[in-house]
Amino acid sequence: MPHSPVDPVNLTADLVRCASVTPEEGGALTLLEGVLSEAGFACTRIDRGGVCNLFARWGDKGATRAFGFNGHTDVVPVGDAEAWSVPPFGAVQKDGWLWGRGATDMKSGVAAFVAAAVDFVRTTPPEGAVIITITGDEEGDAVDGTVAILDWMEREGEAMRVCLVGEPTCPERLGDMIKIGRRGSLSAWFTLTGVQGHAAYPHRAKNPLPAMARLMDRLASHELDQGTEHFDASTLAVVTIDTGNPATNVIPATCRATVNLRFNDAHDSASLIDWLQGELDRVAQEFEVAGEMTVKVSGESFITPPGELSDLVARAVEAETGRVPELSTTGGTSDARFVKSHCPVVEFGLVGQNMHQVDERAEVAQIHALKAIYGRILRDYFA
Amino acid sequence: MPHSPVDPVNLTADLVRCASVTPEEGGALTLLEGVLSEAGFACTRIDRGGVCNLFARWGDKGATRAFGFNGHTDVVPVGDAEAWSVPPFGAVQKDGWLWGRGATDMKSGVAAFVAAAVDFVRTTPPEGAVIITITGDEEGDAVDGTVAILDWMEREGEAMRVCLVGEPTCPERLGDMIKIGRRGSLSAWFTLTGVQGHAAYPHRAKNPLPAMARLMDRLASHELDQGTEHFDASTLAVVTIDTGNPATNVIPATCRATVNLRFNDAHDSASLIDWLQGELDRVAQEFEVAGEMTVKVSGESFITPPGELSDLVARAVEAETGRVPELSTTGGTSDARFVKSHCPVVEFGLVGQNMHQVDERAEVAQIHALKAIYGRILRDYFA
Ligand SMILES: [Zn+2]
Ligand SMILES: [Zn+2]
Repeated sequence: MPHSPVDPVNLTADLVRCASVTPEEGGALTLLEGVLSEAGFACTRIDRGGVCNLFARWGDKGATRAFGFNGHTDVVPVGDAEAWSVPPFGAVQKDGWLWGRGATDMKSGVAAFVAAAVDFVRTTPPEGAVIITITGDEEGDAVDGTVAILDWMEREGEAMRVCLVGEPTCPERLGDMIKIGRRGSLSAWFTLTGVQGHAAYPHRAKNPLPAMARLMDRLASHELDQGTEHFDASTLAVVTIDTGNPATNVIPATCRATVNLRFNDAHDSASLIDWLQGELDRVAQEFEVAGEMTVKVSGESFITPPGELSDLVARAVEAETGRVPELSTTGGTSDARFVKSHCPVVEFGLVGQNMHQVDERAEVAQIHALKAIYGRILRDYFA
Repeated sequence: MPHSPVDPVNLTADLVRCASVTPEEGGALTLLEGVLSEAGFACTRIDRGGVCNLFARWGDKGATRAFGFNGHTDVVPVGDAEAWSVPPFGAVQKDGWLWGRGATDMKSGVAAFVAAAVDFVRTTPPEGAVIITITGDEEGDAVDGTVAILDWMEREGEAMRVCLVGEPTCPERLGDMIKIGRRGSLSAWFTLTGVQGHAAYPHRAKNPLPAMARLMDRLASHELDQGTEHFDASTLAVVTIDTGNPATNVIPATCRATVNLRFNDAHDSASLIDWLQGELDRVAQEFEVAGEMTVKVSGESFITPPGELSDLVARAVEAETGRVPELSTTGGTSDARFVKSHCPVVEFGLVGQNMHQVDERAEVAQIHALKAIYGRILRDYFA
């Protein structure tokens, strides 16, 4: 008896009902393991550091043709639950939309590629392997998520030859953007310390605030680059400056500030940290204050240059939507930054406009269309 | 039977035992009213807005020779009571010091001029009037303190011809400084508002922080003046910059900052507010953010130019201490800023090093010396 196709909207709804706020598994991976196992995927749970992850392979280990999907079932917290029009984990369908936390980011993406993969291996079993990697820790620290799956794959000799991450990528309409890389990201926390004093006697104090103002002005007005072949210009955002001094007659001893950089392939984190440290040292010397900096690098920039994989995905997008997708490197980080060191990777998924917000929702028709695109990609890859 | 001289140290100790933290009267003014009445001063309590004040005159109303003293009996809170070596209102005497809140600022000053005035009118009754004005609200808002006394005097036709404020004025040693004026003071609170956004897409946001950094840098590095004949250079201190944004991936919508200006007679508050508003408007336009400013003027600058009154005080200081006092306009505000519009005013008192601190204390010998200086000033004024 032939199986009927997997409905990606029902599967998304079932996933939304799993309250899988990072790092809770919430039943989401167990649900997917059931669906994939039944379709002949060899499933392995790779749980590490309190995080649950799922690896599933249809076909032979080490196949030279092996198409991979990557995604996450964890979601960000619901935020102000009172502000939602619907229960955040209710998976209500109305007005052509499926509502709920994770409906856009990215349970629909996961449901669409799982549905496409299951239908594909059942109807036209390919020469090669289809691999599904799903983490429960993309929205959190991402330390024991996709990285844990890739570590395990390395040890086990498992390999995707190419990978598609199903995150929302489209700014306005389904099909308008494929992401072929991402800028790198780092944050730096600055502390400037002077000498506290009375505002009436500023020469007896060392005020760190003018120094911080100068430093932030210099950092914010510096042009890092004008963009590179595949990347927008690198940016630096001053995200906070804080002192916490309530007394207008007191010059404070300390001031703190944080900057966040998104950088392209004209830089790496080391060169940027050098630059930041240099500017800090310069201003500390000019104003005779002490400067400290701590840095966290969220990821280096990476790119899968336009070519075979992006062509494959773009052709399928155009065939199903009529749109020629832009190949972009904009936006925030995703687990593609980890997959990049394993194999060529691109990202394509839904319109991401309401992700992480109250009343997150995905258009039902878009979820079906996304499954169709993923299915076409699989057929074309193995053709 | 002749009266014995009033002991200014005992009187200070009695005052310290009155827990007169602003706006509590604490028994301090009642105590002084008793001492002054007994010596023939006509005393009037001028209480307004929950604040107690005392006016006392020996001699005729409207006398053409009328020497005034001004001071306050209210004190700042004890702060960390555990950190004191002595009970803050215990008036302990040890090692040659009198310990307690207000011992320096300025119950000793009040005790010294009350003791000097009482002895003077008893021993050598002058042709003219000696006027004592004491407020219970100098450390607080100062709205219903010395101002209330001066308002009342105006209405009643009472007048001091010159006035000495007995605040601590000496930086190191008794006699080293007379204050003949003060710089003005104003604070300005700035709010810059842009558009919140994601740090990965700074071009979609309007970050107010670089604008604030530029504004604070410009304000702090601007030279207001190089000082005037009797004044140090005006100063601007950036006292706080605050955002309160904990998320490194979010560009905040709003940033706040406060500056405090101490300005000399090259400016007035109106011209400075114009300048601040102009710089705010400029940066708001450059960065396309909205700027708001609120201002509080604590006082304009004022001066009693060196002359008869400062000479009188300086001669007495030199005669009693051997030091030639510097005529200065440094330091924070005092009620001299109100007295200034009534009559020529200068300030002279103890060494102010430990005022407002834990373990505030005055040297016993200095309190006696201060009474002697005030007594000599009275004798010389009426000679
Ligand atoms: Zn996501
Ligand atoms: Zn005082």
